Amino acid sequence: MNYLEQSFSVKFEYKIFFTSSLFNINNNTLIDFFKQKPSESLRKLFFVVDQGVADAHPNLLTDISTYFAGYPEVQLIKEVMIIPGGEAAKNDIAHFDRIVEAVNGFGIDRHSYIAAIGGGAILDLVGYAAAVSHRGIKHIRIPTTVLSQNDSGIGVKNGINYNGKKNFLGTFAPPNAVFNDEEFLATLTDRDYRSGISEAIKVSLIKKPEFFHWIEEHADELVSRNKVSMNHLIKLCAQLHLNHIGGDDPFETGSARPLDFGHWAAHKLEQLSNFSVLHGEAVAMGIALDSTYSFLKGMLTEEKLRRILKTLVKLGYDISNPYIQINDLESPILKGLAEFQEHLGGKLSITLLTDLGTGEEVHEMDQQLLIKASKYVRDFTESSSTTTAYES
Amino acid sequence: MNYLEQSFSVKFEYKIFFTSSLFNINNNTLIDFFKQKPSESLRKLFFVVDQGVADAHPNLLTDISTYFAGYPEVQLIKEVMIIPGGEAAKNDIAHFDRIVEAVNGFGIDRHSYIAAIGGGAILDLVGYAAAVSHRGIKHIRIPTTVLSQNDSGIGVKNGINYNGKKNFLGTFAPPNAVFNDEEFLATLTDRDYRSGISEAIKVSLIKKPEFFHWIEEHADELVSRNKVSMNHLIKLCAQLHLNHIGGDDPFETGSARPLDFGHWAAHKLEQLSNFSVLHGEAVAMGIALDSTYSFLKGMLTEEKLRRILKTLVKLGYDISNPYIQINDLESPILKGLAEFQEHLGGKLSITLLTDLGTGEEVHEMDQQLLIKASKYVRDFTESSSTTTAYES
Repeated sequence: MNYLEQSFSVKFEYKIFFTSSLFNINNNTLIDFFKQKPSESLRKLFFVVDQGVADAHPNLLTDISTYFAGYPEVQLIKEVMIIPGGEAAKNDIAHFDRIVEAVNGFGIDRHSYIAAIGGGAILDLVGYAAAVSHRGIKHIRIPTTVLSQNDSGIGVKNGINYNGKKNFLGTFAPPNAVFNDEEFLATLTDRDYRSGISEAIKVSLIKKPEFFHWIEEHADELVSRNKVSMNHLIKLCAQLHLNHIGGDDPFETGSARPLDFGHWAAHKLEQLSNFSVLHGEAVAMGIALDSTYSFLKGMLTEEKLRRILKTLVKLGYDISNPYIQINDLESPILKGLAEFQEHLGGKLSITLLTDLGTGEEVHEMDQQLLIKASKYVRDFTESSSTTTAYES
Repeated sequence: MNYLEQSFSVKFEYKIFFTSSLFNINNNTLIDFFKQKPSESLRKLFFVVDQGVADAHPNLLTDISTYFAGYPEVQLIKEVMIIPGGEAAKNDIAHFDRIVEAVNGFGIDRHSYIAAIGGGAILDLVGYAAAVSHRGIKHIRIPTTVLSQNDSGIGVKNGINYNGKKNFLGTFAPPNAVFNDEEFLATLTDRDYRSGISEAIKVSLIKKPEFFHWIEEHADELVSRNKVSMNHLIKLCAQLHLNHIGGDDPFETGSARPLDFGHWAAHKLEQLSNFSVLHGEAVAMGIALDSTYSFLKGMLTEEKLRRILKTLVKLGYDISNPYIQINDLESPILKGLAEFQEHLGGKLSITLLTDLGTGEEVHEMDQQLLIKASKYVRDFTESSSTTTAYES
């Protein structure tokens, strides 16, 4: 056969910095990043900021401007783009267009940077616009929520929604750097603060039993917003995600997606609720459902299941929310199975649990058993709210 | 400093097959590709075809359908999408939207394939839609022009235009396979057939002197559409492009872009002519201009320059086309320098010639000298059309 063969590898490297008050002029973390990457040409830096973050931190834009004033290493674009955060940012293509237009208008080239400050949705949106503008301009992520600091903001994926399908358009494009600033967490509502903990529970349950035990033991501290505990949770969760991504399939060419434990139901549930249920909350509900299914399937002991459910309830998750209820085979959440399969491609691959800290891929889900699992979770929450019978 | 570090490599591999009558049922090249990549799940295959190709090959769609009828390895999507070819395909976002909508509607997942048959513009468009749908579905390119078979169709780039800026939106995304079918070249107009030869001249001039000598010697055969000569030209040109891409910067993170020799003027000229000048023709004009500039700059001998210009004229290129004329500092083509710099990012990097087969990067262009170079090319073509004085 007559052919030529192309073969090459591309190396990707980036750091996730953990800091406090990133734009304080005495904090060199950010400027050192630029200084350590000398450039032959002028580097512009353009910020896109989550509306909620800008509102909660009224001095932020001034701080950014003051911070870079003394540094010739970077040419800060004075105009900052503010975009409403949350899933809405990913649903309306107009936001994507605005960013691309700004890249064009401000002359942000492939050696310049676009930095996103915000929750996961803003990071996903800006990351996508950065990845496709000029075939990829440099990109910095500054996640401001627990969820984005420990999971979505530190990985290699970006995306926007299309026709209601979550992340239908996107790429795998590692950022050039991530800066996790604990100060941004201080202004989160309790609901936002807690919701991101579920991704740590998820990764602990499939990767690291000691981490799950730690979360169980520190649930009260996490709920009371103890900073030391939260910093520990975020860093360890981030590390476990990075380890997985840096493994043998960073750009997910296979069908297995263990980090998506609990996510098939979560994605559908977010959509069904029109995103009134937050991603982290939906993941907690998905974990409850799939852990219970694992028990009913005979893979996980009931004692371990109840430890999981108890921890989720303790952290304030509404794991029997009406949107995740599966009452019969017509329940809309069940459509999430087919959509999950389609988005990943190939055969259905769902991660279940065989132990606290050990996942196992299965390729079919018994829908009758899912109905039972849903009822089990509902019964569990009803009994835990009225009695302490299950507290052992 | 408190940070985590992520580091991983992603390997990319694909083959470029050279064949004849790809969809003849006795040709196993295409089906063998699928058979050699067994899949656990059903693989769908969706074709997008260049209108011009479909018109010139009225049996094509039937042939495709017949070809796959006997093979359970692939589930062919019966509906084929036809898109008008040429740069217009990249200018109107509606074409991109149609493809993404089809990926959604036909349920093309990350293990399924989208195949594009057409010229470089269609391949760029479909490649981009494939790269961002589901964060990348599998993609097969079937280039049908000389230009796309020897250059654009076999590389790693895709893209569409935005606000008149060429390839403003795009990604680096290697195809899963490329199939070069010589039969598609047979129906090209002489103009289309010849225009793509300029990319071979380009790569020969910066990489391989023997190849330039070969083109000089076989110019008449190429003009008379000798198949053996054209097959040789395409394969060697493709190999040289692949070698370069597979080198140390496949995704072009640096500013140097030697394969873009002659392209700064070419890109602008295509735009100025509203794409009435074909890409290959524009590249030939850009090569003439930058080679002449190299001579006037004292880098290249006049004898070697004249060999280049003579070869370009012999192949029918209109190298003193009004659009590339630079009469004064206000000539619009000169804006191409700044736009080229912006698209690549960083400092201006232009490849000039120091010899037939040897390029050298420079970082500034003397605009007065470009005016002189433009006049030199014009004088050359005038004298070669009226006398044979320069034929030595």
